[in-house]
Amino acid sequence: MDEISTLLQAIRQRKTDLANKDFLLTWEQTRPELEQILDIAQAIKSLRAKNIDTRVFNNGLGISVFRDNSTRTRFSYASALNLLGLTQQDLDEGKSQIAHGETVRETANMISFCADAIGIRDDMYLGAGNAYMREVGAALDEGFAKGVLPQRPALVNLQCDIDHPTQSLADLAWLKEHFGSLENLKGKKIAMTWAYSPSYGKPLSVPQGIIGLMTRFGMDVTLAHPEGYDLIPDVLEVARANAAESGGRFRQVASMDEAFRDADIVYPKSWAPWQVMQQRTALLRSQDSAGLKTLEQNCLQQNALHRDWHCTEKMMSLTRQGKALYMHCLPADITGVSCKAGEVEASVFERYRIATYKEASWKPWIIASMILARKFADPAAVLTKRLEEALPRIKG
Amino acid sequence: MDEISTLLQAIRQRKTDLANKDFLLTWEQTRPELEQILDIAQAIKSLRAKNIDTRVFNNGLGISVFRDNSTRTRFSYASALNLLGLTQQDLDEGKSQIAHGETVRETANMISFCADAIGIRDDMYLGAGNAYMREVGAALDEGFAKGVLPQRPALVNLQCDIDHPTQSLADLAWLKEHFGSLENLKGKKIAMTWAYSPSYGKPLSVPQGIIGLMTRFGMDVTLAHPEGYDLIPDVLEVARANAAESGGRFRQVASMDEAFRDADIVYPKSWAPWQVMQQRTALLRSQDSAGLKTLEQNCLQQNALHRDWHCTEKMMSLTRQGKALYMHCLPADITGVSCKAGEVEASVFERYRIATYKEASWKPWIIASMILARKFADPAAVLTKRLEEALPRIKG
Amino acid sequence: MDEISTLLQAIRQRKTDLANKDFLLTWEQTRPELEQILDIAQAIKSLRAKNIDTRVFNNGLGISVFRDNSTRTRFSYASALNLLGLTQQDLDEGKSQIAHGETVRETANMISFCADAIGIRDDMYLGAGNAYMREVGAALDEGFAKGVLPQRPALVNLQCDIDHPTQSLADLAWLKEHFGSLENLKGKKIAMTWAYSPSYGKPLSVPQGIIGLMTRFGMDVTLAHPEGYDLIPDVLEVARANAAESGGRFRQVASMDEAFRDADIVYPKSWAPWQVMQQRTALLRSQDSAGLKTLEQNCLQQNALHRDWHCTEKMMSLTRQGKALYMHCLPADITGVSCKAGEVEASVFERYRIATYKEASWKPWIIASMILARKFADPAAVLTKRLEEALPRIKG
Repeated sequence: MDEISTLLQAIRQRKTDLANKDFLLTWEQTRPELEQILDIAQAIKSLRAKNIDTRVFNNGLGISVFRDNSTRTRFSYASALNLLGLTQQDLDEGKSQIAHGETVRETANMISFCADAIGIRDDMYLGAGNAYMREVGAALDEGFAKGVLPQRPALVNLQCDIDHPTQSLADLAWLKEHFGSLENLKGKKIAMTWAYSPSYGKPLSVPQGIIGLMTRFGMDVTLAHPEGYDLIPDVLEVARANAAESGGRFRQVASMDEAFRDADIVYPKSWAPWQVMQQRTALLRSQDSAGLKTLEQNCLQQNALHRDWHCTEKMMSLTRQGKALYMHCLPADITGVSCKAGEVEASVFERYRIATYKEASWKPWIIASMILARKFADPAAVLTKRLEEALPRIKG
Repeated sequence: MDEISTLLQAIRQRKTDLANKDFLLTWEQTRPELEQILDIAQAIKSLRAKNIDTRVFNNGLGISVFRDNSTRTRFSYASALNLLGLTQQDLDEGKSQIAHGETVRETANMISFCADAIGIRDDMYLGAGNAYMREVGAALDEGFAKGVLPQRPALVNLQCDIDHPTQSLADLAWLKEHFGSLENLKGKKIAMTWAYSPSYGKPLSVPQGIIGLMTRFGMDVTLAHPEGYDLIPDVLEVARANAAESGGRFRQVASMDEAFRDADIVYPKSWAPWQVMQQRTALLRSQDSAGLKTLEQNCLQQNALHRDWHCTEKMMSLTRQGKALYMHCLPADITGVSCKAGEVEASVFERYRIATYKEASWKPWIIASMILARKFADPAAVLTKRLEEALPRIKG
Repeated sequence: MDEISTLLQAIRQRKTDLANKDFLLTWEQTRPELEQILDIAQAIKSLRAKNIDTRVFNNGLGISVFRDNSTRTRFSYASALNLLGLTQQDLDEGKSQIAHGETVRETANMISFCADAIGIRDDMYLGAGNAYMREVGAALDEGFAKGVLPQRPALVNLQCDIDHPTQSLADLAWLKEHFGSLENLKGKKIAMTWAYSPSYGKPLSVPQGIIGLMTRFGMDVTLAHPEGYDLIPDVLEVARANAAESGGRFRQVASMDEAFRDADIVYPKSWAPWQVMQQRTALLRSQDSAGLKTLEQNCLQQNALHRDWHCTEKMMSLTRQGKALYMHCLPADITGVSCKAGEVEASVFERYRIATYKEASWKPWIIASMILARKFADPAAVLTKRLEEALPRIKG
């Protein structure tokens, strides 16, 4: 059990404050905290691989609030709860409203009397998703302080308008696995680029999450998109500051070619421009369905001008030795497979298909890690107990 | 562990028959039975507060049947099942039908092969909700007697057309906590009053549940509503008889002022008149959507005549020392917050907001108590086992 | 515990390969394998009857994919997972699409990172349901082989376009219980007959499952239906070959009378003709809603010509001593109860009502058995452990 013992020691030695703050943006966490999340995820994964039961709760609820459709994140969250011994209970509020004020405060308390974790996905409204999570967090703090709640549930951001920390950390865990260590990522060039898709309104949280996280680890991060497909300016600032601090690099280019050239990793993915997402939020708030329709049409037309932002074999040949690692949060828009013309050529995707599945497979462990780290001040002790108990997961 | 030991002794000493009847109406239970429900609820809550695992089942299902929307009750029921070690499985039948006969008998059996509990919310149809629960109960009895079911699931009324026992008992538990004991409730004046709301068709089960339960404990219960907003006559009879027997008082007035005057507790809440609910049921049965629309419009107009039934600061000043405890089953219609004009003024609600959350927080424990008491003839023994085992809920 | 010990010995002695193949069609399993499924189901049922916890997993997920509405199968699957210690997670994809290719491969992996079982119901599209399951199975094999999945989930057919193995095996378990042994079924005449129903498009999987399974056990299987209500030709071939091999009999007749005459068991149930289901699939694929409407009307008219295919008291009097066992997968269309004119007369159904409930009650145990047999190469050892451990299900 040497690998696990080494992990447990690393977890024990890092000074972190994960038990005292919700996981809402990766850039609110210190680098040791991010590393600890990765280590705890790996430890849980390794324990289970040895058929050791990883439950840290004998009972308790984990609440899910999905304010947008989801399959991957939903199953990953359900898996994480199950790994920890919590039972999922879904709050189904409908998607169309932006809740605030008393409704949020009250609901947050009403669902939490027996809850140890709350996971929220709210990525539809720019300026509202992350804010909503903070309102929930404040309501939980108040409920706990005033004796309404016997425990303060861990709050996890399962995707918001700003960041997608469970995705970006799963991506980071995959890069660490693929390249051998975090150390090995230093100086590696990652191209986070826009790509054409026949759909509209894809959230900004993945590209923002990637540039906000990978710049922490000394990587050479290039963001590329056609003119007008900007991300939230504040997040660009974060990426710049991160790169400066970590000894990495962050730059923006307007050409996919330039981004792919000599890249070690490429992440071609569609998103809607920040300005469009702002307009869309305003139109949704005012329930202007005619306006929304017009906006959608304009955007699709606009997108169609950039069909050449396409991850083809030719584009891939520009990368380092033509062998960059292709990444995607899935599902990808695959040309000739899931759509006529999309983000990626079928042969490229097929070559990296299993790699993208492995990338995705990190999410349950990352989410479990975030909850465990928020609920237990000494995660190493809790994991050591599991190792010593060695209760079998499959009783057989 | 003195508090728990005292509770366990009280539970042990009361002679009750809770193991042999479903919990469908509080007035079908003896006073010792109601007190035992409160004590078991408190015991489960206290055990969990000491991080003791309260599961009495290692596996098994708890079925939920929600024939009306629900968030609070749904989460409370899910919490209760989780506390006891049962896994929730939801029967989603759609809301618009009144099932009866073979459909009910068959479905009741089909969902119960591995079920230890069934919770039903069915409050849409006057004359049908509680009747439906009894049909389910009879089908379960038959299935168990004839060897179809290996166990008889506990059946719990999660709100019907007549009563809302999990709400009223949670309210009673909160009053006991707030005033220190059931004994202290004797002679306390509680004003169960109608209040204006811009919505229509709110069920009668909360006011009926309150007057049917609080009259059991020697309280001075005043029911107030505008002319025409009557409750089911049979329930008024129950309240009168209860008050006579318990040495309490029950009266009806047509003025909010009068009800609030010198009240120790106020419970201002909207509901639809009994006669309207009857018409509505007939229209729903005959699928007369035009008739339903007309009825709704008439009712909203009628309601609008009573905007002055409003729990304002001025109204509150009429209560005992101006300091009555404000209660609500939530969500309240708060003037200027959740609607333009509603049941309660924002400043009043805000002052009692945390109190209403605490009131609601009793529901999971009450529901768990009802199921435990129905499934185990000696609940004190079962709880004592938990205390002695002292299995941690949070394994850590 | 003699009954259980005898069962465990029988399970131990049979040579089977259930651990290495998914349960997709009963005729892909050997006769010892089918018998082992029955024995494991009985063993789990008996253990639970003795209040022994049957969980073989301490945690893990079981995925459900219902591409058609379901109550009975849904609850049976949920019960089976709960019996084994798995937690259900539902994949809700919507019903209208026929997924294939990358979507299936990817989704199968994305939902399975922590899954030990996947149950699929997909009976809407002739030629697509069972094929879909095999695509999922192949994707799981690939994911496991390439290290995406840490375990290969058991895949169970919860009803497809060809077979309904959990239903037919529950039916067989009930016949074994009712007649005392599988041996006693030899030579017994079972009439699987079409019956009139005012509805349209009922799947073929039940009659196909029955003729495909009961012919394995030396039964005298008579399939009866009006001209034009054919089943899939391949399945008829399977039934003929089975009967030849088992020393039973399989024939088709065009008269309900003839089928009922001297029958020991009758199974009157409506279904749509195979040719209609083919047309329906083509129309659904091409989203031709006008064509679908026309097809439905034609079929209902066609059905109405056969109102005399009705399981009446008079028909029952033709059976052996007038006392054949009536079977149905439920819900039945009961004349004067659930419809004006249907499959069965009310007095006949009422006499066998409890029997049909008992028939249905076998499904949770059968499904649990299938999963256990797929996941554990030595099911007898696993069940023996449960018996020896004797952990109580109801902790009390």
